[in-house]
Amino acid sequence: MSAAGPELSQPGGEGALASVIRGRLDELSSIGKQAGGGITRLAYTAEERAAHERFGQWAGGDGCAVTVDGAGNSIATYNEGTPYFLLGSHLDTVVNGGAYDGTAGVVGALEAARLLRDLNFGLRVVAFAGEEGARFGRPTLGSSFAAGLLSTEVAGELRDSDGVALAHAAAELGLDPAGCERWLGDDVACFFEIHIEQGRQLEAGAARIGLVDTIAGSVRLRFDVEGRADHSGATPMSIRLDALAAASELVLAVESAARRYRSTVATVGRLEVSPNSVTTVPGHVRVWVDVRDVDSEVQRTTANSIFERANEIAETRGVSIHGDVISELAPVVLEAWPRALAHEECERLTMPYRVLASGAGHDAAIVARQAPAMMLFIPCVDGISHSPRELASADDIAAAATLLAETVRYAGRLLG
Amino acid sequence: MSAAGPELSQPGGEGALASVIRGRLDELSSIGKQAGGGITRLAYTAEERAAHERFGQWAGGDGCAVTVDGAGNSIATYNEGTPYFLLGSHLDTVVNGGAYDGTAGVVGALEAARLLRDLNFGLRVVAFAGEEGARFGRPTLGSSFAAGLLSTEVAGELRDSDGVALAHAAAELGLDPAGCERWLGDDVACFFEIHIEQGRQLEAGAARIGLVDTIAGSVRLRFDVEGRADHSGATPMSIRLDALAAASELVLAVESAARRYRSTVATVGRLEVSPNSVTTVPGHVRVWVDVRDVDSEVQRTTANSIFERANEIAETRGVSIHGDVISELAPVVLEAWPRALAHEECERLTMPYRVLASGAGHDAAIVARQAPAMMLFIPCVDGISHSPRELASADDIAAAATLLAETVRYAGRLLG
Repeated sequence: MSAAGPELSQPGGEGALASVIRGRLDELSSIGKQAGGGITRLAYTAEERAAHERFGQWAGGDGCAVTVDGAGNSIATYNEGTPYFLLGSHLDTVVNGGAYDGTAGVVGALEAARLLRDLNFGLRVVAFAGEEGARFGRPTLGSSFAAGLLSTEVAGELRDSDGVALAHAAAELGLDPAGCERWLGDDVACFFEIHIEQGRQLEAGAARIGLVDTIAGSVRLRFDVEGRADHSGATPMSIRLDALAAASELVLAVESAARRYRSTVATVGRLEVSPNSVTTVPGHVRVWVDVRDVDSEVQRTTANSIFERANEIAETRGVSIHGDVISELAPVVLEAWPRALAHEECERLTMPYRVLASGAGHDAAIVARQAPAMMLFIPCVDGISHSPRELASADDIAAAATLLAETVRYAGRLLG
Repeated sequence: MSAAGPELSQPGGEGALASVIRGRLDELSSIGKQAGGGITRLAYTAEERAAHERFGQWAGGDGCAVTVDGAGNSIATYNEGTPYFLLGSHLDTVVNGGAYDGTAGVVGALEAARLLRDLNFGLRVVAFAGEEGARFGRPTLGSSFAAGLLSTEVAGELRDSDGVALAHAAAELGLDPAGCERWLGDDVACFFEIHIEQGRQLEAGAARIGLVDTIAGSVRLRFDVEGRADHSGATPMSIRLDALAAASELVLAVESAARRYRSTVATVGRLEVSPNSVTTVPGHVRVWVDVRDVDSEVQRTTANSIFERANEIAETRGVSIHGDVISELAPVVLEAWPRALAHEECERLTMPYRVLASGAGHDAAIVARQAPAMMLFIPCVDGISHSPRELASADDIAAAATLLAETVRYAGRLLG
């Protein structure tokens, strides 16, 4: 087996790709740049649209027709034809986010598509709108509208923290998500998404590429722990009903429950104490739990075991603990065949890879409900994302774009 | 032993006292009344002064000369003479506090003093200013200035949450705490303070009176738990540095440490999570710990054991935990002889009593540094204080005032 594929040794190969990618990421990172170095390019804002316009200019420069659907997704047609392969990711960010989450996948997809202009198969690149849940509390808006998975009412119901409805924000930008026709379906032979890992498994395994087999689901729980607020000096330990001590047991129970299965992660990311005064035994604590798993049965079992432990803690301590499921998303198992092709191409290109699950949600998990989908992860330094410190290598993005192009070419040979 | 002392069966006895006390508490509770029923009469405000003016009118109505010192403490002279017995408590409240904390002691002291007009010994009643730490973060200001325990600089240094210096707030009211001459000293034969218990020991023991032997000290600690903020979905449990899970162990360690000794209470009343987002493993948690004990050795041992546990947790979890002592107050053991007299009077009056420690701080703990001091606790419903739901019985205050008068009379016979 040769040391590298043909692109790697040619002029205009991976090194040239990396330099284009670096330049485009730099351009995008100037849109929504914050004083501290982070990027704020929220869903359905002028900043997000500015990034989509840049996308349109780049694809237009490649000679492509670019359309924008009602939900604000930009679609560039590289090769006419149906069915077609769809490559892409998203261009919005969280508040004070980084320069790679989503953008790496869009910029990488454009480079892969340029490598595939001679492909004898339909080929499009998409930049999805509103993937981050940061503004409207709900992620993957653009892909969900395009996949026909959101009711038309949702655009009127979802509001940001200023009370602005999604439908209103979109209308100000000339968009109409509720009127978006479903176009993600049988025409899509397969969706391919490059994304930063947002974890440290690739780094730990010295792998350059992650082949994602599953995208974890999530169950979000909220618990209200009700004890009794008391004077911290005058109340003996024996008669306290300390809501924070009870909540602390719950936090540790969540951690233990997650450790029972290798595939599970569970987190108390948010916890609020009331009255939160140094000299008062806490009377009320609210605890938010995020449980994720690639196995829906285990995900449910873990959530149930957390409820059981909450009941035990309440009983033992004499406090009241009330829990609610506030959202539930099933895990998505990605289609095996495109991953198998990528696997073969990794071997051929001697690219160190690892098969892994995605703990984070992605547009690919939405597309997967209507069409085959695959994801390629690239390493990001220390697994940091959603932060100004988010960092990935343009060389890794170029390598992923090359692998993506080879995999799509292989798939085109099989399906063509 | 007879069923009750002479006051209880006479007209103008305890029933009449209770009715005066009830009326005066009602009057005071109208000063600083909030919409929700609570009372806000913060240290060094017009509301606090209005309550002191009412005190002055009542004592003046009893024919007393009333003076106000530079720190805003009001002193009414019932019987001239040195040394003298000093009775009283404070008239300020926390934000949205109750109608009994402090006021019960002042109103009760006035009634006890009226029963003692024939006493052949000096007698004064004091309403201390600024006992609650709610406004300036430091309690017992008035008594501390009167006891010469605060440097003159403190009045300029202490500021409220709006940045107003104590010296400035006091000056607006015509007061000058820094210029307050120390007057709590050898002239005071003994200080007597009636106060609500702010706990449930009397209620639990069906006692009507608590004889306080010790006022707990406190050590306040603040811990910064530094882990690593990570994506809640993409970060496997095995590589997390979860600051909240570590902090939860610390909360439970504080609770365990307190349970090692009967006299100890320890509380995490305040805890703040950062970034406090449902989908982020907490990177930083700040934990405030309040340790109180009547035994300074045990108090220190408990604080040290919490530091040790913090180090163990940090080591086991690979997080960093940095702790600081932010304040330390030694416990105060109250003089035994006035309590012994009260004890005898309880027996004589067949008043069910209990000897107990005060977990909360009080003016009596300050006065005790310069003169003998004793405290009488009365029950408060469910131990609730610093709340609009704070509730005590006027009959219990009247009984405490009667007991106080008898105890002072007894002390007068011994010292006179």
